[in-house]
Amino acid sequence: MNVRIAIAPEAAIEGVGRPTDVSVGPLRERVARAVEDGGGEVVPLEDADGLVWLLPGGPGPLMEALDAHPRLRWVQLPWAGVEHFTEAFSYPQAFTCAKGSYAKQVSEHALMLALACLRDLVRHARAPHWNPIDPRSLGGLNVTILGGGGIATELVRLLGPFGCRVRVLRRSTTPLEGADETLPISRLHDVLPTTDVLVVALALTPQTRHIVGAPEFALLPPGAVLVNVARGPHVDTEALLKALAAGQVTAAGLDVTDPEPLPAEHPLWSHDQVLITSHCADSSEYVATMLCERVTENVRLFAADRPLVGLVDPAAGY
Amino acid sequence: MNVRIAIAPEAAIEGVGRPTDVSVGPLRERVARAVEDGGGEVVPLEDADGLVWLLPGGPGPLMEALDAHPRLRWVQLPWAGVEHFTEAFSYPQAFTCAKGSYAKQVSEHALMLALACLRDLVRHARAPHWNPIDPRSLGGLNVTILGGGGIATELVRLLGPFGCRVRVLRRSTTPLEGADETLPISRLHDVLPTTDVLVVALALTPQTRHIVGAPEFALLPPGAVLVNVARGPHVDTEALLKALAAGQVTAAGLDVTDPEPLPAEHPLWSHDQVLITSHCADSSEYVATMLCERVTENVRLFAADRPLVGLVDPAAGY
Repeated sequence: MNVRIAIAPEAAIEGVGRPTDVSVGPLRERVARAVEDGGGEVVPLEDADGLVWLLPGGPGPLMEALDAHPRLRWVQLPWAGVEHFTEAFSYPQAFTCAKGSYAKQVSEHALMLALACLRDLVRHARAPHWNPIDPRSLGGLNVTILGGGGIATELVRLLGPFGCRVRVLRRSTTPLEGADETLPISRLHDVLPTTDVLVVALALTPQTRHIVGAPEFALLPPGAVLVNVARGPHVDTEALLKALAAGQVTAAGLDVTDPEPLPAEHPLWSHDQVLITSHCADSSEYVATMLCERVTENVRLFAADRPLVGLVDPAAGY
Repeated sequence: MNVRIAIAPEAAIEGVGRPTDVSVGPLRERVARAVEDGGGEVVPLEDADGLVWLLPGGPGPLMEALDAHPRLRWVQLPWAGVEHFTEAFSYPQAFTCAKGSYAKQVSEHALMLALACLRDLVRHARAPHWNPIDPRSLGGLNVTILGGGGIATELVRLLGPFGCRVRVLRRSTTPLEGADETLPISRLHDVLPTTDVLVVALALTPQTRHIVGAPEFALLPPGAVLVNVARGPHVDTEALLKALAAGQVTAAGLDVTDPEPLPAEHPLWSHDQVLITSHCADSSEYVATMLCERVTENVRLFAADRPLVGLVDPAAGY
């Protein structure tokens, strides 16, 4: 018998926006095929053992579904970062997310933001006239990546030919392949004085909220740039504005902001050393493709009673 | 006896601008040390066997110097592209230029322009509000590089981890290491229909002027982007504007333009898919450092009567 998987919503609804929200119109049909590709059968919620969750918003509706259908044993979430769903992780089901799935495109975006910061792209893009600006090269700089997950793994690969000194700070002490150094997050303050490019690429948890704030900016050397492709609240926005004004940070490339979306009147918008890309490091099509791959893989593993990929650690919150 | 090298100008003058012009104030003193590092002695023009040319502008003053001092056997020029000095190449002296010297920074800039075009950086940088735009990834695309010199060599290296299919079109038939295909320039029209990213990185000669024009744009597939880090006249500017309007080219990243500098009222400035970086792919400091390295190396080779690096082929014009 096939493994029985439900998909929420049970019927296709209109897409609701950008990748973080996951468009659930055509996506639902693709996920249904992905379930079948993994040897699963798409069934109503009351008959299901596993659940692929595609509804945007908070965890309330999911917790209601789990209350109503306690026979569910596994929930696949569509996001890489699941900080908004931690409340659900007290349920006994196994939760998997898309962590690592979207890393290739996000790491590419991070590299572009770093290059754009060093090469003054905002001023170039906004100048309506010839405006030579001496660029800075990424080649040979010290890059510190906060986080040792999929994005860090891919970014280290992309940085390979640049001859940077790459340090990865992560929770685990396992060295990340290709990094010159892998250190615990607790060493952050030690490495900041020799960090030219600081890339935030880790999960948002109560411990990593505002991991980059006033004390961290104060430790950076002149000319340092900040790249955030993780979650807005990793960076203390007010402290960032002050650090930019004080010259503690030369430029910032932000795919995510706090608050998000950033209000139109926010001073970050007009800063000529701040590039904001409105949370679109990965494309909708790519997200759909990679999510379907993960669904297929996990349905297959779930059917075989083997360890799932992208398993959320309820204690860690990601 | 040391090899005797003159430097023009014979006295330090004020810097005159950006890298292509070569600032000759402090640079002259650094080049003098570079000559000495290569075992040379800096002497007045009338006593010299070789000449390092640092004067901006055209070839007139150089040709006058060569007329007045026919005992000169070698001239080192400071630019990578020497299309504005071809008139001097009828003189019997050996001419070397800086071709290849600045390639690392220029290739980094080319990569950034490609990423910026695919990821809509101009629109992001100009938007004063949250503006999600589905990005396109460079990973896996077909990249065609026109030119097989230093920039192509370095760009192929940087593209390595992206999993692109990289084709290099060059005059020589020698395969460029790391490229998936190396083809003669004459094959350009054959490869354009499968080119997602077209990078112009070759020398400007009468043969390569307008190498990218209306017929070439018409052959590109939907969504193609153009990057030019070589010389403005490689691209037919009017044809580019029409190709952008017709959707034959989705975006262009131009470090060089024709005319250059691009006048403030030019329509390219206001196009939201055109990123112009005002000929600053390499920094003044980097140019100075790399030029001095080449001077030292060539002074050493000249003294030993060995083949010089960056030798200009007078027939080819670069």
